[in-house]
Amino acid sequence: MEQHDMIDLAAVRRAATTLFPVVRRTPVHTSRTLNERVGCEVFLKCENFQRGGAFKFRGAYNAISRLAPEERARGVLAFSSGNHAQGVALAARLLGVSATICMPDDAPAVKLAATRDYGAEVVQFQRATVDREVFAREVAGARNLTIIPPFDHPHIIAGQGTAALELLEEVPDLDALVVPVGGGGLLAGSALALHGIAPTARLYGVETEGADDWRLSLVRGERVRIAPPTTIADGMRTLEPGRLTFPIVRRHIEALLVVNDAEVLAAMRWLLLRTKLVVEPTGAVGLAAVLQGLLPPAVRRVGVLISGGNLDPAILPMLWPA
Amino acid sequence: MEQHDMIDLAAVRRAATTLFPVVRRTPVHTSRTLNERVGCEVFLKCENFQRGGAFKFRGAYNAISRLAPEERARGVLAFSSGNHAQGVALAARLLGVSATICMPDDAPAVKLAATRDYGAEVVQFQRATVDREVFAREVAGARNLTIIPPFDHPHIIAGQGTAALELLEEVPDLDALVVPVGGGGLLAGSALALHGIAPTARLYGVETEGADDWRLSLVRGERVRIAPPTTIADGMRTLEPGRLTFPIVRRHIEALLVVNDAEVLAAMRWLLLRTKLVVEPTGAVGLAAVLQGLLPPAVRRVGVLISGGNLDPAILPMLWPA
Repeated sequence: MEQHDMIDLAAVRRAATTLFPVVRRTPVHTSRTLNERVGCEVFLKCENFQRGGAFKFRGAYNAISRLAPEERARGVLAFSSGNHAQGVALAARLLGVSATICMPDDAPAVKLAATRDYGAEVVQFQRATVDREVFAREVAGARNLTIIPPFDHPHIIAGQGTAALELLEEVPDLDALVVPVGGGGLLAGSALALHGIAPTARLYGVETEGADDWRLSLVRGERVRIAPPTTIADGMRTLEPGRLTFPIVRRHIEALLVVNDAEVLAAMRWLLLRTKLVVEPTGAVGLAAVLQGLLPPAVRRVGVLISGGNLDPAILPMLWPA
Repeated sequence: MEQHDMIDLAAVRRAATTLFPVVRRTPVHTSRTLNERVGCEVFLKCENFQRGGAFKFRGAYNAISRLAPEERARGVLAFSSGNHAQGVALAARLLGVSATICMPDDAPAVKLAATRDYGAEVVQFQRATVDREVFAREVAGARNLTIIPPFDHPHIIAGQGTAALELLEEVPDLDALVVPVGGGGLLAGSALALHGIAPTARLYGVETEGADDWRLSLVRGERVRIAPPTTIADGMRTLEPGRLTFPIVRRHIEALLVVNDAEVLAAMRWLLLRTKLVVEPTGAVGLAAVLQGLLPPAVRRVGVLISGGNLDPAILPMLWPA
């Protein structure tokens, strides 16, 4: 893959054109009850209804579709036990490209099955003893496959930015946008879309307590690596911001907000019972920040990116009322 | 309320005009995974996203808006511990009409709170010793209130039919429509819309085992009253078809299908994990019938009415995988 492409709003628009025939234009949900509770208008961009159950399909399809014909003929590889795996597997199938996914040996059976259902080959490794990136590079090298990285690539970032682009087309006068941040692909892509279309609107990233590598990095002004965090929001478990995503986010972000796991569960429960939306923990962190009142009162119309809905069923009992 | 209005497609269209400024035009969701599993195209009409969390708002608003000014000035009364209560409370508030809701003393606190949140006065009665209809008539008589019945009224039936009308506007070439049936307001309204717009399409009602008053009544050719059923689908707990809804349904229905509680829970779980939709038990019976393969193979494009999403949180643990 070419790494030197210019990443800007035009790249997000090109990604949107590429994605148009295959992506689901996900709905924007609103709730009067929610607006009354938080005192401003909230627009939920529902990527939990995206193909593959999360926004990850956008970046994966954009990246694979821009590979050279000989790269596509050889196949692609991704390392992930989560939504990126399903996004790459689905995008590859739609593009007629064979996909290999490296997953740890303790990945949930349901995720293994979902990835295989999309036609990908799953190669497992021992999480305890093997570094997944090293393992993935070995497999990719031996099989001559192109790695589709989870976030730190121009085509991935541009593809993820199309969710915010759609939201801004539908609700052009947002004065803030709230986005979950793990590796930063979705946040960086959203930054490009928001900065290009609504430059005065404020961009907020949200992460969970203990997984605050972005907050620390932004304070320090350089990428900080943290110890593996324990958080219910599995999309937040990256250890440091991306090399490409960090400077984009740093340039455009208003503030990095932090919520804890209990607040994430409360937001999930609220979404489930009040708005009838199934949202995974990472997908609920943005609303958790809004429900906690972390936005300034000047924010009147806020977009919240609901990043995905691939809920581990084991989490359902945690939503059970006390 | 006038009882002698003609009920037909024109009445449903009049209700749609009345509802237009206030109703949410609920989305129609599709799922490739679902289509592959059941071997036909399925269109889910998502009334779980309707205001008040269920289709009941449609009929309630239509009925209250057609009251005479002096009736509206005196106020309305409904007896219900479920979605009809919330539908009437919300519709009355929007129309500036005071609402009194009779609820049993064992109604869940969350339902009491939701009904009061919409501004209604709740009057409780002892379920064990008091007949709710007798109690409701006494209260209505003493306070000079107009009763808004849960299903057996022309304006209620016409209002409920607007959900199917919207679905048929969006997906005109359905060859079947599957609808949950309790008292029959939604099914009768759907029958009028379907018969008027797509007369060759087949209409299916679905109820749960033990709550099969409609199946028995259709077999016998007259309304049959059953013993109080025990079913997880609380919208199915009516004891007999309505006086008005029965002949309409009987004229248009292809078949009455029956599913059991385990199949309903499986459908709820499938909707939650695969389509990210929160659906209450009654709302899932239609999909349960489709997943069980109860439709004939000739059905290629089927609409399924998801009637509501007001889930009792106590049900969540039942969705927990075995």
